Amino acid sequence: MGFFDGMPAVEPSARVGFAGNRIERRSEHRSADAVPAAVGDDRARFYLFRGDKVLLRGSDPLFEPREADGLGAVRDETVLLGWAGDGPRLASLLPDSAQIDEQRIGLVDLRTVATGAMVTPEHLGALAQARALMNWHGRHRFCSNCGAATTIANGGYRRDCPRCQAQHFPRTDPVVIMLAIRNERVLLGRQRQFQPGMYSALAGFLEPGETIEDAVRRETLEESGVPIGRVRYHASQPWPFPMSLMIGCHCEALSDTISRDEAELEDCRWFTRDEARAMLAGTHPDGLKAPTNIAIARTLLAAWSGG
Amino acid sequence: MGFFDGMPAVEPSARVGFAGNRIERRSEHRSADAVPAAVGDDRARFYLFRGDKVLLRGSDPLFEPREADGLGAVRDETVLLGWAGDGPRLASLLPDSAQIDEQRIGLVDLRTVATGAMVTPEHLGALAQARALMNWHGRHRFCSNCGAATTIANGGYRRDCPRCQAQHFPRTDPVVIMLAIRNERVLLGRQRQFQPGMYSALAGFLEPGETIEDAVRRETLEESGVPIGRVRYHASQPWPFPMSLMIGCHCEALSDTISRDEAELEDCRWFTRDEARAMLAGTHPDGLKAPTNIAIARTLLAAWSGG
Repeated sequence: MGFFDGMPAVEPSARVGFAGNRIERRSEHRSADAVPAAVGDDRARFYLFRGDKVLLRGSDPLFEPREADGLGAVRDETVLLGWAGDGPRLASLLPDSAQIDEQRIGLVDLRTVATGAMVTPEHLGALAQARALMNWHGRHRFCSNCGAATTIANGGYRRDCPRCQAQHFPRTDPVVIMLAIRNERVLLGRQRQFQPGMYSALAGFLEPGETIEDAVRRETLEESGVPIGRVRYHASQPWPFPMSLMIGCHCEALSDTISRDEAELEDCRWFTRDEARAMLAGTHPDGLKAPTNIAIARTLLAAWSGG
Repeated sequence: MGFFDGMPAVEPSARVGFAGNRIERRSEHRSADAVPAAVGDDRARFYLFRGDKVLLRGSDPLFEPREADGLGAVRDETVLLGWAGDGPRLASLLPDSAQIDEQRIGLVDLRTVATGAMVTPEHLGALAQARALMNWHGRHRFCSNCGAATTIANGGYRRDCPRCQAQHFPRTDPVVIMLAIRNERVLLGRQRQFQPGMYSALAGFLEPGETIEDAVRRETLEESGVPIGRVRYHASQPWPFPMSLMIGCHCEALSDTISRDEAELEDCRWFTRDEARAMLAGTHPDGLKAPTNIAIARTLLAAWSGG
């Protein structure tokens, strides 16, 4: 009894940016004719991209199939995301040459759409799914096994090699991102490319042969020199830049002494709970800032600080 | 205070198969000459593979550089795993034609090495790291971006394209594996290829745009028809067949009614705690079995049943 007692009905992962996806994927029913069959449904709607930008009509990112066709959408650049309550949902990458009437249709990169909450969480989640798939197709038009050009298959969830018959599936890269805690303080770092004053949780790609906990300990040690003991999973997040799964953890620092990886981090230091709260509230006396509202690092910091 | 209170000093992930890796990767210091520099160290030792098989001298999987050279190891098939207490650890895939004196050196596939505990947990973890990297190199000799042949770089942790300059990094596929719980019973399924009588936790690849919890709910619903509420992460496991990260969870079933995906599962049903314990102990009256000792599904089942 009570195996889930004390757990909230809605997990922290449900509240991170890009987690609002409600599309029903029906992954077991994807077939060779998935895209044409879906497009033939009157209720089919498209999410559309040109390059890195999402097409938006006000706050509405959905387009009818005839609109997608008119803008130059082609089947080879179209994926079937799944079904929403009222019909199939597809996504397509328009050619760079697509002419778009920017009086009527906005072109906005997905980070800006997300940080500005320019669409509903449901649409933002679907756009993350679509963007990750587009990014994958964009870098995987050739067979990594033999070098031949591959073709899109199974509604965009596979690419097939006509020469060596290899099948390739979308890639999702696990990244650990962690907040190390010791004596009521947390460890945050700054990369040079961060916006001025912003500090965030340390992070890095999980490597072959690692558990999540081992990756948390290795990355923290490599970047900050701080040894880590226990690790507690907190939340995960789809991160479509280009195709990651962020795995957010709190972890127990075993030392205060920092030895920063100077190539990776411009600064790395301990922050008190009061400082963390001020950074989250935007009231830090030195103008220091927490990560943006779409970053899981902010979720980790808020969960620890109560901010 | 007490953010980690109640957590064990050693997490469940540390006890799964393939989790014993103690190699220090020093990922931030990998360089173009990482492999030759490491081979030049007197304390360097190789893990060796021919095809799917590990080379073993009794329970010892380590070979000296001159032995690796003698067996035909080449630099293009060699990766630097990192450092153990007494020196660099490398891994190399021998050519299929490599002549091995099977009176002196055993050739055993990694699953058998693992289930038979034929090497120490430390070696088993290192072999998992090595095997996943070998599997990745084996399927990624060409650039997925342009089709050109790529070259190994950064100690085997990157492949570079000489034509389009793309850099490719080892892939690790996140898989969710979960034990659904309801009314003191757990949901287990059987795939046709399982050994007779074995039942295991449901599992599937996490897809682009999903959180871990969303993937657990989708996969369970698709395979069994059982809707899921809360999800609790339990442990993770490197799984080098060919290159996965198993993310093990317990989850809360919201219905008893099963509607099995017949293409995926031969059977799917609820098991009581007594049945689960008997399966773990090998004493189930119908001869039903829990997964093998190296499977994280067994860890999930044991944690729930107290077995």
